[in-house]
Amino acid sequence: MTAPNGHQQASPATGERKEIPMYEPVRVGLVGLGRMGRFHATNLAGRIPGARLVRVSDAAEDVARENASRLGGLGWSTRYEDLLEDPEIEAVVVASPTHLHAEMVEAAAASGKHVFCEKPISHDLERTYDAIEAAREAGVGLQVGFQRRHDPDYRAAKERISAGHIGEVYLFRTTLSDMRSPGFDYIEGSGGFFADVTVHDFDAAHWLVGEITEVTAAGAALSDPGFEEVGDIDNAVITLRFADGALGVIDNSRVAGYGYECSSEIVGHRGTLRVGDHRRVSLETLTPGRACRDHVSDFVERFADAYREEMEHFVRVVRGEAEPEPNGTDAAAATVLARAAERSHREGRTVRLDRERRDGEVLYEEAGA
Amino acid sequence: MTAPNGHQQASPATGERKEIPMYEPVRVGLVGLGRMGRFHATNLAGRIPGARLVRVSDAAEDVARENASRLGGLGWSTRYEDLLEDPEIEAVVVASPTHLHAEMVEAAAASGKHVFCEKPISHDLERTYDAIEAAREAGVGLQVGFQRRHDPDYRAAKERISAGHIGEVYLFRTTLSDMRSPGFDYIEGSGGFFADVTVHDFDAAHWLVGEITEVTAAGAALSDPGFEEVGDIDNAVITLRFADGALGVIDNSRVAGYGYECSSEIVGHRGTLRVGDHRRVSLETLTPGRACRDHVSDFVERFADAYREEMEHFVRVVRGEAEPEPNGTDAAAATVLARAAERSHREGRTVRLDRERRDGEVLYEEAGA
Amino acid sequence: MTAPNGHQQASPATGERKEIPMYEPVRVGLVGLGRMGRFHATNLAGRIPGARLVRVSDAAEDVARENASRLGGLGWSTRYEDLLEDPEIEAVVVASPTHLHAEMVEAAAASGKHVFCEKPISHDLERTYDAIEAAREAGVGLQVGFQRRHDPDYRAAKERISAGHIGEVYLFRTTLSDMRSPGFDYIEGSGGFFADVTVHDFDAAHWLVGEITEVTAAGAALSDPGFEEVGDIDNAVITLRFADGALGVIDNSRVAGYGYECSSEIVGHRGTLRVGDHRRVSLETLTPGRACRDHVSDFVERFADAYREEMEHFVRVVRGEAEPEPNGTDAAAATVLARAAERSHREGRTVRLDRERRDGEVLYEEAGA
Amino acid sequence: MTAPNGHQQASPATGERKEIPMYEPVRVGLVGLGRMGRFHATNLAGRIPGARLVRVSDAAEDVARENASRLGGLGWSTRYEDLLEDPEIEAVVVASPTHLHAEMVEAAAASGKHVFCEKPISHDLERTYDAIEAAREAGVGLQVGFQRRHDPDYRAAKERISAGHIGEVYLFRTTLSDMRSPGFDYIEGSGGFFADVTVHDFDAAHWLVGEITEVTAAGAALSDPGFEEVGDIDNAVITLRFADGALGVIDNSRVAGYGYECSSEIVGHRGTLRVGDHRRVSLETLTPGRACRDHVSDFVERFADAYREEMEHFVRVVRGEAEPEPNGTDAAAATVLARAAERSHREGRTVRLDRERRDGEVLYEEAGA
Repeated sequence: MTAPNGHQQASPATGERKEIPMYEPVRVGLVGLGRMGRFHATNLAGRIPGARLVRVSDAAEDVARENASRLGGLGWSTRYEDLLEDPEIEAVVVASPTHLHAEMVEAAAASGKHVFCEKPISHDLERTYDAIEAAREAGVGLQVGFQRRHDPDYRAAKERISAGHIGEVYLFRTTLSDMRSPGFDYIEGSGGFFADVTVHDFDAAHWLVGEITEVTAAGAALSDPGFEEVGDIDNAVITLRFADGALGVIDNSRVAGYGYECSSEIVGHRGTLRVGDHRRVSLETLTPGRACRDHVSDFVERFADAYREEMEHFVRVVRGEAEPEPNGTDAAAATVLARAAERSHREGRTVRLDRERRDGEVLYEEAGA
Repeated sequence: MTAPNGHQQASPATGERKEIPMYEPVRVGLVGLGRMGRFHATNLAGRIPGARLVRVSDAAEDVARENASRLGGLGWSTRYEDLLEDPEIEAVVVASPTHLHAEMVEAAAASGKHVFCEKPISHDLERTYDAIEAAREAGVGLQVGFQRRHDPDYRAAKERISAGHIGEVYLFRTTLSDMRSPGFDYIEGSGGFFADVTVHDFDAAHWLVGEITEVTAAGAALSDPGFEEVGDIDNAVITLRFADGALGVIDNSRVAGYGYECSSEIVGHRGTLRVGDHRRVSLETLTPGRACRDHVSDFVERFADAYREEMEHFVRVVRGEAEPEPNGTDAAAATVLARAAERSHREGRTVRLDRERRDGEVLYEEAGA
Repeated sequence: MTAPNGHQQASPATGERKEIPMYEPVRVGLVGLGRMGRFHATNLAGRIPGARLVRVSDAAEDVARENASRLGGLGWSTRYEDLLEDPEIEAVVVASPTHLHAEMVEAAAASGKHVFCEKPISHDLERTYDAIEAAREAGVGLQVGFQRRHDPDYRAAKERISAGHIGEVYLFRTTLSDMRSPGFDYIEGSGGFFADVTVHDFDAAHWLVGEITEVTAAGAALSDPGFEEVGDIDNAVITLRFADGALGVIDNSRVAGYGYECSSEIVGHRGTLRVGDHRRVSLETLTPGRACRDHVSDFVERFADAYREEMEHFVRVVRGEAEPEPNGTDAAAATVLARAAERSHREGRTVRLDRERRDGEVLYEEAGA
Repeated sequence: MTAPNGHQQASPATGERKEIPMYEPVRVGLVGLGRMGRFHATNLAGRIPGARLVRVSDAAEDVARENASRLGGLGWSTRYEDLLEDPEIEAVVVASPTHLHAEMVEAAAASGKHVFCEKPISHDLERTYDAIEAAREAGVGLQVGFQRRHDPDYRAAKERISAGHIGEVYLFRTTLSDMRSPGFDYIEGSGGFFADVTVHDFDAAHWLVGEITEVTAAGAALSDPGFEEVGDIDNAVITLRFADGALGVIDNSRVAGYGYECSSEIVGHRGTLRVGDHRRVSLETLTPGRACRDHVSDFVERFADAYREEMEHFVRVVRGEAEPEPNGTDAAAATVLARAAERSHREGRTVRLDRERRDGEVLYEEAGA
């Protein structure tokens, strides 16, 4: 990890002395310039103190070249290996298509690069654990992109729960909805509704409340016959039972036409916390008989701060100042829970989860699976 | 039902002529002076235009006498029959303990009195249908006390859904919580959590969205070991599937310490409706670093308007100007659904509901039950 | 005032004994069936416990007759005197045109009737004091219709200020606006903008914060040249200085097109109170990109509770259980302040107010006037 | 201004070609490392795309050295001239004490550096105009730090007003308050309440609504006798009349104990806009009977986005892509208005403003002054 180096050199322009940077910026490469990749790249190119994006990579040459240019003349490449072979680069951000995540994490680990990987590491649980193990063995940090953990509202909620402000938790309720569905080409490669959408809520439930022992899911394809044709759904409700007895409920929609929504409530013995009301621009417009506010339209608008914060956190991970949040095991847990929901939905029954503990972490697996 | 009578008589004081009342006020008797009975009686004694409370009845003589006096010198009695035998009384409000509801409804019907009955008519479904039938045969109105149907917010939501403002419904979400639990003596006679608490949400779901085909419930006793001892729970989450495909989710708590909550959300194709934010006094107090509002503490505070409106509606029922809202069949439906939730919770499985239609109304029964 | 009379008589229907009413309802007459008169009459006819509206009066026979019929066959008359000569009537509500208020108050006092008078008693200060004096001498209660004093939000604010919750007051800010202006026929008889609109804010300022020593007003006619033609304005801002040093600011509009608004803020040493956010129906409708609520459209919708509460308070005044709130002297103070604002606006200067104290009450007059 | 240079060079690590940056980052120097200076420096050091902070300067050597180190090993100096003599530096940010602003702007202009100057340029109007003139003659951009112009909420309001969404403006209302006062050492050098606090509201009024013709101000020293001792105030209300007839009202406090507040309302013919409700963390905490949110405590928390945006805007100014917002003339206007308020408050009268137009800009001066 980047060590501070404190010696001084003369500053030619002033005759006064200039201290060598306490911290050289962390030099980052990024692979995959789709929507999330471009977004992370834009942040890394100028909004993340302590980070310097030095090279981007995408299999499509024009995409790689145009983004490198747009971001201020970065290096670019069509080969991921170029990032890994660049001795300047200390860390990589993996925002490629999901099926490439696990191998890219492993390759980064083999090259000794810290790695931030968009969720999920893999829809395959074995592949997920292999990638986690590779990072662990290489001694590099592996952080996964559940951005809600870095949202100021959710982080404040977590802190208050941990500090005991609301006492024992009785109920957890959360909503995650998109305004409109992505196209069916995306849906088909998404891993399914629970793995693509609900997985965020599973991570939040696990993080905010704790270990989950039962998942019961019901889904429906309501907005477009195309969902049924590809064997997927567009709305779901999921109930949870936590190891300490608390109950949980999740509702999700791909087609909540009014906007993007990510709201949660945690009801506890001594108090209740609510995260929501997430309007980025809080301008109220009043016209005859109505008072209106703009509602956020997508996750990028809703979580602009969280996406910056998760990259700032990753910089601290690279510097050895923080642990990955969430780490690979957290991501694996969310994947197991999503798979349990999928099974519950398909089989019309509650799925119970066993767990083992390894190195103090909860590893889920389906009971009897 | 009270007929308008329009002849005139001389007004002695002015020499001008006085029209005979378009409507004599509806004369009402009320039985059962517990919490809800006293509340309805206070409303009927002076806040419901067109109603005049003339006599109250309670098995406890001091309760009957003191309330009669408090309300301005009403007649009182310890015998319910006195209300039914009073030829002046056109309608009765039944707010006695639940186990007396069905027989009191039947007796009122036999006496030709319209009847407003607090929920539920009976925990026994046969008794419920018998009471409904008795009212139907006697040609008297039978209205049941699900006050949410008369809340201005919920009514406005219902109107907008019916008018097609939000299009096809995808998701229904609702929360009903009490600040603290009643004592275990109440709990033991309550019919169980689902019949006492969730039943309100079943009525709302059925009313706002439509027919329900699947109920899956999970409950937990978390706040006090006493709940387990009496075989009951204090928190529950319930998922629903509606006949038209929509999904629903209910969360309930007896112990949401911060206050009383009754909030709902209906996500539709073209828009979403939210009922909530129910602060009766909208005074904001700002102290260093905090902006606070009082939160309603109980259903009486939350639904003060709704309780008045449901009595005004009942007056219109007595006058033959409106249909009971909700009626006995609606109440029976909510009871069947609550029983299904109870079974789902106990057996850890989804309960499916069949239905038959009689006179255009949906009668639920559990599939295969 | 109505004395409770506690003897009993036999209840023929049951053989049980019926207590004579603790309190006979207060029998009320109402004069003036314009908008406010009809509204008060509807409340008095069935929504105010302890009150019974027995007769209404309006100079227009058809108005009197139709309202009497609508309200359940009340007595009616075209002569105000008929109310005063009716020995059954204990109290009158004066909702006639403003220029009749003072003489009607005096006549009511001469007849020994308690009187509720819509604001203002008179635009003429001498007439106002004469009417106050008449009520005082006759020993009848005189309550004036500044309904904000009975609004649950404002009352809660007043209680918290009085209890010292916010400490010494630094700033008072208040907004009162109508969605659209009444017609110019009304404007011409309104006494001018400050006497018709701002007077409510002067009463609120005086009630919530205390004595006022300086008024500086600026008005403008912006929405319609008609305002200038009749010598009036449609928007104004007014600053205040209170005797204890606090500053105040009022903004008013007749043409705030979005709806009716009555919001206030009181900034104190230890905390700040805000009254506002006054949506009667708190249903939120979300459509693509927008979250909207209905906004109240007029004062009747905004202050429905306050209008009922002020009549309930008046019942207690008639029964000798409460002091008039506000009383005639309060109304006179608001009139003096409105007149000062008018002068400030016309002369482009700050108007300072002297006061004398009589019987512990503040009587304002313009300094040097 | 920085020209894009588009040629390419070989990328040694990959063998692929690297485009030369479309835009080299703008190299910025910053002088004055007090609270605002440190805040701007932190932003410039890593959160402003397209900017690179290369050197900081402060008269206190330890302050300069420590901040340079904290920010990643920047160059530092105790002499402002070092920034101006550095040929690498294209632009300077002036965050020094107010009395140095004007001369530093002029020196920057003389060195051909673009300049961002914290408000105000000078309390002296002649000095202000001289500095503006110096920048104009040198052809460098001069942007002044009224950050509200770059707040997303206020900017959206401005856009809607300009687009005619609310029609003709009738009323403008704005509140600016601090939770607690800075110390009296600051107060004494602040230029007085109106020049230090209200000046922000004058800029907002002028920007959002337009030219102002009358200012009437009333202030009071309420929280601490120290204000009177130094001849200053801690609370004020100010009314405005705009050239197009609209009215305005401002209330300000240094001691609104609950938090920082910057809220505005613009009432127009067709609609009304409200900016406020500015909670950075929208987490609601519910405890028995209360629902609370954290309130922002200071301007840095409230305007975190705006401070970043104003620096991003300044980068575009340096690149020749945008005009300074606000510019020096805007700042001079706010200063004239603040001086008029001061005079109005001291003399107890309305101050009228004349204006001349030069190069299409409004220059204010007091009528007859």
